[in-house]
Amino acid sequence: MTQTGTTLNGTDASRVLSIDAMGGDNGPATVVAGLALFLKKKPGTQVILHGRAAELTPLLDRHGLTDKVTLRDATDVVTMHDKPSLVVRQGKATSMWSAIDAVRNGEAGVVVSCGNTGGLMAMSMLRLRKVDGVNRPAIACLWPSRNPQGFNVMLDAGADIRADQDDLLIYALMGTSYARNAFDLKRPRVGLLNVGTEEHKGRAELKVAHELIGSAATKGDFEYVGFVEGGDLPGDVCDVIVTDGFTGNVALKTGEGIANLISGLLRASLRRTPLSMLGALMARGALNALKKRVDPRRVNGGVFLGLSKTVIKSHGSADATGVAAAISLAHRLADQGFSEKLAARLAGALPHDTGTAPTRGEPA
Amino acid sequence: MTQTGTTLNGTDASRVLSIDAMGGDNGPATVVAGLALFLKKKPGTQVILHGRAAELTPLLDRHGLTDKVTLRDATDVVTMHDKPSLVVRQGKATSMWSAIDAVRNGEAGVVVSCGNTGGLMAMSMLRLRKVDGVNRPAIACLWPSRNPQGFNVMLDAGADIRADQDDLLIYALMGTSYARNAFDLKRPRVGLLNVGTEEHKGRAELKVAHELIGSAATKGDFEYVGFVEGGDLPGDVCDVIVTDGFTGNVALKTGEGIANLISGLLRASLRRTPLSMLGALMARGALNALKKRVDPRRVNGGVFLGLSKTVIKSHGSADATGVAAAISLAHRLADQGFSEKLAARLAGALPHDTGTAPTRGEPA
Repeated sequence: MTQTGTTLNGTDASRVLSIDAMGGDNGPATVVAGLALFLKKKPGTQVILHGRAAELTPLLDRHGLTDKVTLRDATDVVTMHDKPSLVVRQGKATSMWSAIDAVRNGEAGVVVSCGNTGGLMAMSMLRLRKVDGVNRPAIACLWPSRNPQGFNVMLDAGADIRADQDDLLIYALMGTSYARNAFDLKRPRVGLLNVGTEEHKGRAELKVAHELIGSAATKGDFEYVGFVEGGDLPGDVCDVIVTDGFTGNVALKTGEGIANLISGLLRASLRRTPLSMLGALMARGALNALKKRVDPRRVNGGVFLGLSKTVIKSHGSADATGVAAAISLAHRLADQGFSEKLAARLAGALPHDTGTAPTRGEPA
Repeated sequence: MTQTGTTLNGTDASRVLSIDAMGGDNGPATVVAGLALFLKKKPGTQVILHGRAAELTPLLDRHGLTDKVTLRDATDVVTMHDKPSLVVRQGKATSMWSAIDAVRNGEAGVVVSCGNTGGLMAMSMLRLRKVDGVNRPAIACLWPSRNPQGFNVMLDAGADIRADQDDLLIYALMGTSYARNAFDLKRPRVGLLNVGTEEHKGRAELKVAHELIGSAATKGDFEYVGFVEGGDLPGDVCDVIVTDGFTGNVALKTGEGIANLISGLLRASLRRTPLSMLGALMARGALNALKKRVDPRRVNGGVFLGLSKTVIKSHGSADATGVAAAISLAHRLADQGFSEKLAARLAGALPHDTGTAPTRGEPA
């Protein structure tokens, strides 16, 4: 691994972004294009970009970023098909490893990668420590919703296929902290995903979690609305939805699948007759506004919660707009000192205070 | 309970429909209106209608159905808030009980109810026997999909919050049989819902079920496509998707929630400017075609599989069109002798032949 480019003199390292340029379905050109989009909006941001220098150098040059980004050469790439167990054993020379180690070493505050989710999670777990009190870190994702902020937070979206009652309580606390930082919500409303809203419904661990989360609400400064259902993921009864990673992953992919089905059918329907084509043309502004509202690229960026540093997983198939959205989220969270706030929030809300103190700002 | 109206002389009782008129969110007027819609299309169908005679008599009169439907008076109603455990202990005088007992007694072949799902399931389990080989009956529901038939079958949609590997195998066999009868598919393709398509993914029972279902494919005359993901529920990689009732219920409600969010946003978007309103007017035919394609009312009717008789649960909030769709499905399944075909299919495909033989037609 060779370090090239400028050093980061004079910048608070926790605000530096560490970006894995490789491993996405669309290759490093898309990541660099997304980075260029982002840097147009936030030109002063310090970025370390990890990947094959031979491929990245001409891309940075093309976008005029050569002097604005620190390039760090990494010869290997984690592919979408690599097993997590393999990645952690043999991945030392990969761009993903390099990107994670930059935050591990204190050179940067937040990691962004479009690579293999399982590999990124496994490597993050290996190289970054878990926050005190966290057994299973989780992936938080955003749903387009009827709430004023336009989005709801759901976790776990698939970091782990299991979650017991204690994990679900931690998810509630972490999701609350994330919603505060992502949406500026003072007192987020939390729901626990179940097959019905009645108290007698659901699995045993859900009934216990229901009690635990309810009891933690006052100290954790959130509102617990109780059990919610699948229809509430895009709804307005709460801002944070807690579930295990199996259920969350199926729900997320189901929602995307239905949205894609409907938009595909809508396009086909509108092309059927000249009249409907003309009508679609006239309603184009409205249809584009809708598309923007539910566009997965705008909400791109699952966030790993529960590790000492924040890791953002962008969709593997993200285009430049999607990559830029994920980098913007990273910038926002780095700027707010989110990792430290989350640790402080968990330390303050859990029954056994672990002594972790905030290193910057107030808990959120 | 008083029997009024005509007897069912000369009709094969298994083709008679037993309909619970009460317990839906919209009351018996909607059920009778739906029945009237259905009977316009299939005027010869024999129907026993269960509920409060004092309420139903004027409704039947209004739709000119007094002589076409057998009315069976039942004084009590299972409400949406009644617990299943209470319903089975104290529900003897309800219309739901009466509707189920009509098939139990051999007077009718299929039950339809808009009532409380948990109550209907518990009462069906109590009054009807399980088919040999079935431990957990399941609810099968339909998803709008990219497949030529326009719909996929998913089970379990929420009959039970648990399913072990043997249950999942039975679901595959029952779902296959249902897809054959609902869509005339010769050799349905079956997928097992998981968080990824790779063999190493998912919970332990899923890995065992993966082997069991794969081994049963040849004898069961279906194609097993392996693990599928949430996005495949409305997709075209398989026709039948097998999952536990917790995951299935969350996925179903999530899909409905996203579809409702999008259609609400589309309506709001199109109303925003005069130009977009005019455009929407011109594209009205196309938009209506889309609405029809994904209208939950058209696919209304979850089917309880694994009991000696078929029980169809219509959406509690179904309107007359939705009720008519559920009754049409009941008519189709009764006409095909589906209950007997399902039992024969299970008896033939399971390792230990239980000796159950088809009583009518070929297994399907």
